[in-house]
Amino acid sequence: MTSLADIEVFRAFATYATLVLVKMMLMSLVTAFYRITRKVFANPEDAKSHSKGGDPKKYIRTDPDVERVRRCHLNDIENIVPFLGVGLLYALSNPELSCALLHFRVFAASRVLHTIAYLTPLPQPSRALTFLVGFLTTLSMAFCTVRSLLYI
Amino acid sequence: MTSLADIEVFRAFATYATLVLVKMMLMSLVTAFYRITRKVFANPEDAKSHSKGGDPKKYIRTDPDVERVRRCHLNDIENIVPFLGVGLLYALSNPELSCALLHFRVFAASRVLHTIAYLTPLPQPSRALTFLVGFLTTLSMAFCTVRSLLYI
Amino acid sequence: MTSLADIEVFRAFATYATLVLVKMMLMSLVTAFYRITRKVFANPEDAKSHSKGGDPKKYIRTDPDVERVRRCHLNDIENIVPFLGVGLLYALSNPELSCALLHFRVFAASRVLHTIAYLTPLPQPSRALTFLVGFLTTLSMAFCTVRSLLYI
Repeated sequence: MTSLADIEVFRAFATYATLVLVKMMLMSLVTAFYRITRKVFANPEDAKSHSKGGDPKKYIRTDPDVERVRRCHLNDIENIVPFLGVGLLYALSNPELSCALLHFRVFAASRVLHTIAYLTPLPQPSRALTFLVGFLTTLSMAFCTVRSLLYI
Repeated sequence: MTSLADIEVFRAFATYATLVLVKMMLMSLVTAFYRITRKVFANPEDAKSHSKGGDPKKYIRTDPDVERVRRCHLNDIENIVPFLGVGLLYALSNPELSCALLHFRVFAASRVLHTIAYLTPLPQPSRALTFLVGFLTTLSMAFCTVRSLLYI
Repeated sequence: MTSLADIEVFRAFATYATLVLVKMMLMSLVTAFYRITRKVFANPEDAKSHSKGGDPKKYIRTDPDVERVRRCHLNDIENIVPFLGVGLLYALSNPELSCALLHFRVFAASRVLHTIAYLTPLPQPSRALTFLVGFLTTLSMAFCTVRSLLYI
């Protein structure tokens, strides 16, 4: 059997998908960093372990920067989950390598730029545009996938 | 090598998975539509670009309809992620085509009806039932997958 | 064609991925259980169907335990989505079976213990440690995947 690991377009998808997933995982660390340095917690047991003798309850609160990172993380999930599913199926539908690479690269770049635009934050419409580019890239792969694999 | 793209049950999964993912992606557009038409924003930079001279701060607020769409979107993620993972593994476990098609079709229909029931909103238990049908469909595929592929 | 279903490392991934996804799906049932037994709802139509003649509006509220389950569920999504994507690509990159099994088992155990630590709740740093073990396991698989499949 020719292993999937020998097919270039599958290897390209694996590389870019892993990169965007690792980028998404970093959002957890950014959230944790803000929560600990600013003492902003959602759970009493977290506040307790960082209150050092003070009243833990006053650290159970929300903070604009923590909420911003969390919205950015959720937006990643909302967009990277479709990319994972659609991108894998697209990579397995025997697309042209150059066309597939273009899709994967544009999507990965759009998500990195989206995170920069969200966390800086850059003035709109920079974030809206980076979101839209990734969104349309996924839709384009969905269209190609359904066209070549359609089985209702 | 027989490509995965030649296996009918894989093509069926690719078609239905792409459809439910595109449906889920549309929730982002519905949220954006409500946010812009009702001027309800989560980020100061978004409020600023739509306030046209007024005070941007008064547009940073929540709205029942926006929150409803967001809950519907999150429920999609909570249910479509397991479908994606379990469904793909199930499709690769050599199931009978007719049985697999039944699972994919019922799940896809349940999520479309769930969205309609959530956004209309229809009186309960319509939303609870559509959720439950999709949930049980995924559990059924999980059971079949583990039964045929079990390797602990 | 040797089917993927004959490859042991793929079968191992399928088993553990299905297990963690089913565990994640159970969080929906825990949320529903708390919402119904404590009469804490997010939607007016849900409150209405459980208010039995009383004023439905007073049941549209938040509750610390419901919010705790929801945070646990969201943390699952944030960590299981990368595991699904990275783990599948890793399983298809021809890793050594014993090494792959170790990764899958440690990740699955870390998520079960994380849920126990979150819902009990156990004092910190138990939850932080279980999170970190799963996080590092996924990063380790991401590193192995990119090393063997890299195609930029």
